[in-house]
Amino acid sequence: MATREGLIQVALGRVFPELIIKNINLVNVYSGEILKGYEVAVWQGRIAYVGPEAKIGPLTEVVDGREMYLLPGLIDVHGHADFISNPLALAKKILPTGTTGILTDTHDICGALGPKGLKLMLDATADIPFRYYFAAPAVFPPLPEFEGEDIFTKEVVASLLANPRVLAVSEVTAWNRLMEPEREFVAKLVYAQEQGKRIEGHMAGCSYEKLNALISCGFTSCHESITAAEALDRLRLGLYTILRHGSIRADLEPLSEMITKNPHLDTNRVMLSPDWYSPQDVLKYGYLNHLISEAVKLGIPSIKAIQMVTINPATYLGLDNHIGGIAPGRLADMLLVKELENPLPETVWVGGKVVAQKGVLKTEISKFPEVRLQDWRDERIPRTPVQPEDFAIKSAEVMVEIPCIKMVNKTITKPVNLIIPVKNGQIDIQGSPDLLKISLWSAVRDSWVTGLLTGFGAEVGGIASSIAHETHSPMTVGNNERDMALAANRMLELGGGIVIFEAGQLVGELPMKNGGILSSADLEEIAQGMTELNTFLQEKGCPWDDPIFGMCFLAFTGLPYVRITPRGIIDIRQKKVIFP
Amino acid sequence: MATREGLIQVALGRVFPELIIKNINLVNVYSGEILKGYEVAVWQGRIAYVGPEAKIGPLTEVVDGREMYLLPGLIDVHGHADFISNPLALAKKILPTGTTGILTDTHDICGALGPKGLKLMLDATADIPFRYYFAAPAVFPPLPEFEGEDIFTKEVVASLLANPRVLAVSEVTAWNRLMEPEREFVAKLVYAQEQGKRIEGHMAGCSYEKLNALISCGFTSCHESITAAEALDRLRLGLYTILRHGSIRADLEPLSEMITKNPHLDTNRVMLSPDWYSPQDVLKYGYLNHLISEAVKLGIPSIKAIQMVTINPATYLGLDNHIGGIAPGRLADMLLVKELENPLPETVWVGGKVVAQKGVLKTEISKFPEVRLQDWRDERIPRTPVQPEDFAIKSAEVMVEIPCIKMVNKTITKPVNLIIPVKNGQIDIQGSPDLLKISLWSAVRDSWVTGLLTGFGAEVGGIASSIAHETHSPMTVGNNERDMALAANRMLELGGGIVIFEAGQLVGELPMKNGGILSSADLEEIAQGMTELNTFLQEKGCPWDDPIFGMCFLAFTGLPYVRITPRGIIDIRQKKVIFP
Repeated sequence: MATREGLIQVALGRVFPELIIKNINLVNVYSGEILKGYEVAVWQGRIAYVGPEAKIGPLTEVVDGREMYLLPGLIDVHGHADFISNPLALAKKILPTGTTGILTDTHDICGALGPKGLKLMLDATADIPFRYYFAAPAVFPPLPEFEGEDIFTKEVVASLLANPRVLAVSEVTAWNRLMEPEREFVAKLVYAQEQGKRIEGHMAGCSYEKLNALISCGFTSCHESITAAEALDRLRLGLYTILRHGSIRADLEPLSEMITKNPHLDTNRVMLSPDWYSPQDVLKYGYLNHLISEAVKLGIPSIKAIQMVTINPATYLGLDNHIGGIAPGRLADMLLVKELENPLPETVWVGGKVVAQKGVLKTEISKFPEVRLQDWRDERIPRTPVQPEDFAIKSAEVMVEIPCIKMVNKTITKPVNLIIPVKNGQIDIQGSPDLLKISLWSAVRDSWVTGLLTGFGAEVGGIASSIAHETHSPMTVGNNERDMALAANRMLELGGGIVIFEAGQLVGELPMKNGGILSSADLEEIAQGMTELNTFLQEKGCPWDDPIFGMCFLAFTGLPYVRITPRGIIDIRQKKVIFP
Repeated sequence: MATREGLIQVALGRVFPELIIKNINLVNVYSGEILKGYEVAVWQGRIAYVGPEAKIGPLTEVVDGREMYLLPGLIDVHGHADFISNPLALAKKILPTGTTGILTDTHDICGALGPKGLKLMLDATADIPFRYYFAAPAVFPPLPEFEGEDIFTKEVVASLLANPRVLAVSEVTAWNRLMEPEREFVAKLVYAQEQGKRIEGHMAGCSYEKLNALISCGFTSCHESITAAEALDRLRLGLYTILRHGSIRADLEPLSEMITKNPHLDTNRVMLSPDWYSPQDVLKYGYLNHLISEAVKLGIPSIKAIQMVTINPATYLGLDNHIGGIAPGRLADMLLVKELENPLPETVWVGGKVVAQKGVLKTEISKFPEVRLQDWRDERIPRTPVQPEDFAIKSAEVMVEIPCIKMVNKTITKPVNLIIPVKNGQIDIQGSPDLLKISLWSAVRDSWVTGLLTGFGAEVGGIASSIAHETHSPMTVGNNERDMALAANRMLELGGGIVIFEAGQLVGELPMKNGGILSSADLEEIAQGMTELNTFLQEKGCPWDDPIFGMCFLAFTGLPYVRITPRGIIDIRQKKVIFP
């Protein structure tokens, strides 16, 4: 019996359900109500019946909900399961917290591996008890002028979007290119829209006029609001508006005022997402369950907070016939929770099977496959062995004024000019406090491009990272060229990762064996490794809460104001190389 | 400059808009707010900018909104522009009332013409300033066992659904067939769902278990609730729930209690539709503007009522990037109204062009093309000339007990057994008050199938109609076989329509030259003709408000309890022929 035919028979009471959950308070996300005394019947992974009295057969498993709340599985509408934590390790950790689905961006793994990065993600997540959906890049790299030729041609984009699990264009960090407008880029977005795909915005700091321009162009969501006024502008202009609260930024307190100060505001196009949670934060907070708790604490009604991570994302993604609510025909992804304000589940079902109970995973999820160094994008693989001289900055002067990257906080930078002494024909940073070299491997120059960084705070010999958003060309930072080279060589030897050397000694390392961007390890192991590296850097004086994360974003051209690229240090606003 | 590229430039103020509407109270259906002092800029048919201050160029047309309300064009999520009023005549009449789009069912025109009925509708509506979207049948006829072979095979359905303007499967009146379940039928619905199409329900009188069964099967909406409790069940079970208020039934008063008694109920999956408005009612009431007024009178907040005919239908239909709200990138379909409670528009724009002002159409809409009799489905074309003997009911008895159709109201019937005298070997109804013959052309029998009708009230010679839901095989009703034959022949001579003869004289006629199901005329002419025919029948004693409409539904197997079909009078529940 095919599924739909069988569901009909179960609903009619002619075939018995496999599972009944009775005696529940149903959280009805369609009507915005809590309905007491309901029963839910499940057959072959889908819900067949929701109502007062389901027919129980001799083999039906009956779960007494003991008047707890039954919620649909939580859905993250804009996640990043494509850097640091691999999607399988992430799913294992967050299933017990009630999140059962994510639309994950893939621009980082595609940056690391090209279009085959998406295929890797699709294949690895195809048969697990967790729903992964994907957003695929429309362009890469974001700034071809500085970062290398666009490898996401219209044909490549069309082939990626053809997959039914690819529901959106991944967040467009290079939206400024659309202002010209760049025709081929616009055409790709129009094509995506015609295919019924969503277009994920990244409209950080966007003026009101530019916001109108991007929405005119077909963008459907944005998660970059940091004030209630910005979020309200986006909602009013027709965007699905994501309130972000995660490791990159956690702005729910100001953002929630959009709702708490406008109690009649329609919130069916408002959603909650962490954007990205570091492994450390997942272990500390959980995932969407934490966002519900935070939202309720800030005065958002619990039913609205729940809608923002269930039916609202499902509707936005065109998946509301399948997920996001507890209704007939939907996949039986559900949580039983004691209290809505703190919805840590007693039991989590995915497709009608128990996948977690009281915080413990009750299902098997395999390991994410490793990726060999030679499968990285060619442009990311440096000439080896890396030598200390690779990081030299030569000058014929005695003193030289150099425009440097200054970290303003973990993610934002600004340019600052510093005067640096020259010694033996090379600039010498040894005497300058809080001054480091920063270097990115550049295939176009067939050499490392080296500049200067201040504001990192930690005096460290050498850090090497194979994560450096969005091109993920290997990056090194340090005050000692020998340590930088040692770190880079060790990182490559590991097949990717983050490595710190100090005075010729290995301080710590965290392998990222999946394309140099994802760890194969479970979140506990990654979090521990990351915490050790961060603690070392903080003890050395770095003021930021996640120094490694901050470092990885120093190449990210989607945020202001100066970044390192394969062409040099660039000023994002003026679109020009300022050094060398 | 392509549209999206141009819109970007207009939003940025680098290209001037063609039209600005300023000084408006913007009805923001996304956030549920009224925003004062807004301006909207339009370029090449789409909205480019919405906000406080649009850039005006030397050639920009500026419309002063004089603090009136600007609404998105109203959308009927479940209309029937495929019987009696043709879609072009309907659009002409309702554009000035603010409705700018309809998802229309096509099961009637497809019943009349087969799959080419849909093509006719698609072609005729392709280039008019009104947005028609379509729902295509998944099966036809509804009950093949009684009404003839299913001509909507899986291949036919797939080809119809492939058109991007076909957004749904048209209302499934034969849902009882899914209970068995009929595999091929289920498979077609599963296919439609996989293609991202909606499935329109017609769940009249459906039990709670059957409701669960249909939703399990993938149905996405229902417009058949007649009580608030039924509507609430549908909403809670995940259906988009349509509150119907039109000519077939007008139940907004009881239905509105779903909302007025539950002020916190989420209404973003609730919609308003007339289902079908007769030409007479369109002239009397308007269209969706009237439904908003009625909803507000019943206590539904005006912003919610407006959402129910704008963004809610647009979201349901997957069109929210294009219609349903006033936001950048959307088609510039808008209304300027003085009061939200009675939103009769001062001006209506479609695609940025004025199409109506102060109730007067300001655009040209062509005539709907005529369809020749020979292009009807073969099964609908009777042997001609029709003879009085065609309607004889023979019997060897002196008196005979016959199960008759009794009209309970305009749309509902029940069986009743009457004892009728026989004269010259034929039953004789002359002496029986309120007893008429009812006859349907039957291709399978190659003859007219004749039964008896009571409850129609009017003693009338002969009425012939080429409209008889859903097969639309010609029907005659009357107490005089000669008048019945005269009416039938005249109706066929006209190329379809409704004709009344009395004592050998033509009383009135209303041609339906488009497949015998649609009139080519404007609504005023149809309404006048229909009123004349109805008045004649009412003066003859028919108690129903729309006797012709009631008659046309006597063949409709989607409603209880007895109907005439090409196989005879059938009992719908027992699925058997009860006469002859």
